[in-house]
Amino acid sequence: MDALPWLADSGVAWSADPAVLGEKRLDRSGWEPEGMPVAVVWPRTVGEVQRVMRGALATRTPVVPRGAGTALTGGSAAGSGTVVLDLSRMDRIVEIRADDGVAVAEPGVITADLDRAAAAHGLRYAPDPASLELSTIGGNIATNAGGLRCAKYGVTRDSVLGLDVVLADGTLISTGRGTLKGVAGYDLTGLFTGSEGTLGVVVGATLRLRALPAPTATIAACYPDVESAAAASVALAEARVQPVLAELLDEATLAALAGHGLPQDGGALLIVQTDGGSAAEVDRAVGALSRGATSVRHDDDPDALLAARRQAFPAIERLGRPLIEDIAVPRSALAVAVRSIADIARRHDVPICTVAHAGDGNLHPVVVAGGWGEPIPESAHRAADEIFGLALDLGGTVTGEHGVGVLKRHWLGRELGADQHLLQQRIKELFDPHGILNPGKAI
Amino acid sequence: MDALPWLADSGVAWSADPAVLGEKRLDRSGWEPEGMPVAVVWPRTVGEVQRVMRGALATRTPVVPRGAGTALTGGSAAGSGTVVLDLSRMDRIVEIRADDGVAVAEPGVITADLDRAAAAHGLRYAPDPASLELSTIGGNIATNAGGLRCAKYGVTRDSVLGLDVVLADGTLISTGRGTLKGVAGYDLTGLFTGSEGTLGVVVGATLRLRALPAPTATIAACYPDVESAAAASVALAEARVQPVLAELLDEATLAALAGHGLPQDGGALLIVQTDGGSAAEVDRAVGALSRGATSVRHDDDPDALLAARRQAFPAIERLGRPLIEDIAVPRSALAVAVRSIADIARRHDVPICTVAHAGDGNLHPVVVAGGWGEPIPESAHRAADEIFGLALDLGGTVTGEHGVGVLKRHWLGRELGADQHLLQQRIKELFDPHGILNPGKAI
Repeated sequence: MDALPWLADSGVAWSADPAVLGEKRLDRSGWEPEGMPVAVVWPRTVGEVQRVMRGALATRTPVVPRGAGTALTGGSAAGSGTVVLDLSRMDRIVEIRADDGVAVAEPGVITADLDRAAAAHGLRYAPDPASLELSTIGGNIATNAGGLRCAKYGVTRDSVLGLDVVLADGTLISTGRGTLKGVAGYDLTGLFTGSEGTLGVVVGATLRLRALPAPTATIAACYPDVESAAAASVALAEARVQPVLAELLDEATLAALAGHGLPQDGGALLIVQTDGGSAAEVDRAVGALSRGATSVRHDDDPDALLAARRQAFPAIERLGRPLIEDIAVPRSALAVAVRSIADIARRHDVPICTVAHAGDGNLHPVVVAGGWGEPIPESAHRAADEIFGLALDLGGTVTGEHGVGVLKRHWLGRELGADQHLLQQRIKELFDPHGILNPGKAI
Repeated sequence: MDALPWLADSGVAWSADPAVLGEKRLDRSGWEPEGMPVAVVWPRTVGEVQRVMRGALATRTPVVPRGAGTALTGGSAAGSGTVVLDLSRMDRIVEIRADDGVAVAEPGVITADLDRAAAAHGLRYAPDPASLELSTIGGNIATNAGGLRCAKYGVTRDSVLGLDVVLADGTLISTGRGTLKGVAGYDLTGLFTGSEGTLGVVVGATLRLRALPAPTATIAACYPDVESAAAASVALAEARVQPVLAELLDEATLAALAGHGLPQDGGALLIVQTDGGSAAEVDRAVGALSRGATSVRHDDDPDALLAARRQAFPAIERLGRPLIEDIAVPRSALAVAVRSIADIARRHDVPICTVAHAGDGNLHPVVVAGGWGEPIPESAHRAADEIFGLALDLGGTVTGEHGVGVLKRHWLGRELGADQHLLQQRIKELFDPHGILNPGKAI
């Protein structure tokens, strides 16, 4: 088909090849937008992004910014009439200033690549979403991605110091700063982080790096049930232990992971990691985790247990097509949440495996929604909806770290309340008065 | 004088006593607004704050929200025709949910009181601005206050999970959440934090508490000059040490602190604290700090050295009237910044003592601006202006943790750039279309 004339004139690399469009219209949510995008563009410079946005504004063409397309929410899905703004070729690590504890990166840098580059300086980029070998810094910023290590080191927002952002009209602004601290003006860095490409296009990021911690200890403890596992995870704080991560796997997940080398001495497993190198802290952690445990294994190799944990989603995928959900509840409600999700699974007769970041009350119930290629059964959607309702009833949120995208938009009003929802919509209108930035997403 | 009729009708406690107005029109910046406020109101409930805002909007009365009035920027100074909304009587700690690592507090709670209440549960409210025994949680949120421990535990923003905010028209919204993680909608919690009362009135806060760390170690190291002290502070990261705090005192500050029990073996002192309890980390810290040091003292009592450090500002105040400035620079530019500030002091012939949070590149140059009660010499203002320009020239910010208030407004456009400054002003207009919330401040 003919490309948009303004795009052809822009000098930016683009394609309207149906095979390319077919690939770039989807993310990993399984959600199918209506129709096909018009083109995919691959800018390589900030100036090229500005030209694309100016052309899009002049022609009122909706633009869908995209990193690696690993969103689980439909947030980077692109439907009829849109231009996909694929930022994956803006993938330079511009600089690592080790003395400052700062990195400057383009949005298309793969998250794990940045962390490895930092490690060469004895530093770490702390946020570690499960997708870190695939997903990009820009995508992580767009969703304010979490991960395992957030329990101690915070989410993506906590590592973003400043952003270069191209606004809907092509204007470039630089928010935040290159320093670790600063309070001049409103926090637009935080406002853009997690805004899912609806307020502007992130074209550069100044990121905080932290000292690589001294060797870590990893502890796996089995419990008869989720209640005792959740109680043990709370006991860590009482023992003055700040775990780097605390991963809870329920019975269904453990069954899916049989044969992967994880201890299987009960209905729930907790994997806890500490860093900082204090033997006394490790002892206190083991002591806290031993309460009510059927077995406790302490491992100085941080990788073996976590590698097995990271196989949870692939293992569940072998059971069928997964709907990976993402709620967060107050930490004390963790056991109630896991137990209630198991009840929902029974009531709707769909398998649900729950993995939780127990340190911050973030749960990923994975609804196994029939076989691959089969239509998703209605019962799976109903179960997912009940899970979101459960999260709000427990004082939690419908999304802990994946974002709203398309799939959770109808829950947003209930979580935010009508007044705040309206205020957020007016912020969107202020930044994007013609509604060309990732329309129909997030807000 | 007659009070405003709408205020008298509102049922909220208020006063128009000139002595009260005279006290509540000032903060700790030394800045004098023009004229007198009309009244001071002391709401005790969210509903009362809503009533005040509705009356103020109807009558277009400017409102100046106020906590303890410890701002150093004129941010809580209240001039002619304003109503001071004093939130210090909304001072309840509503709950501490130890299992969740969460506290809920009204804005008037004194920061140190919250930390002490958390300590009773083995927890800590981490942000520790120097004013923590006087300033309020609401004021800390309004300025996104920093402190000493930010090097490891972040600024106020990093401990704010959710806010209850009364908007300019009296609407109450609840931003963020009671969970440790969540990404539903735009981050209004971050937008309100640091907005200096110009976007809404914070009437409640859900705050993150952290596990109280295991015993700490405190190290004091002297150096011949600031360059070697700054180099040692950078060496900590290379040694894989994440200090809780790293305080650098320059030669002028050390002279002012003579007799307070601090080691005085050179032109610069670094006080570093670690926590987490690893003896190996303390050894590595001592090793890193020993490079180029004239003396190193290691102290298991965390309080003695820090108590002396906290005497720095009172000691400087004995030299004359202090203008406490607040810039941040990339950590690697710390020594250049301190040295350049000493040059500025010499050139303008005004004493300047510099204390820095070296871990995050945040400097407090204190310009001694003549004797108490004397007019501030023009040279002091010129020196301060040069310090702000220096911060920007070094890639830093004109305010690391105190905020913009009145005194730094004319620097904001230069730091943000014209496009971003305009965007921020439009956000202000969106939230406060009639300009009644702390007008003339911050933005």
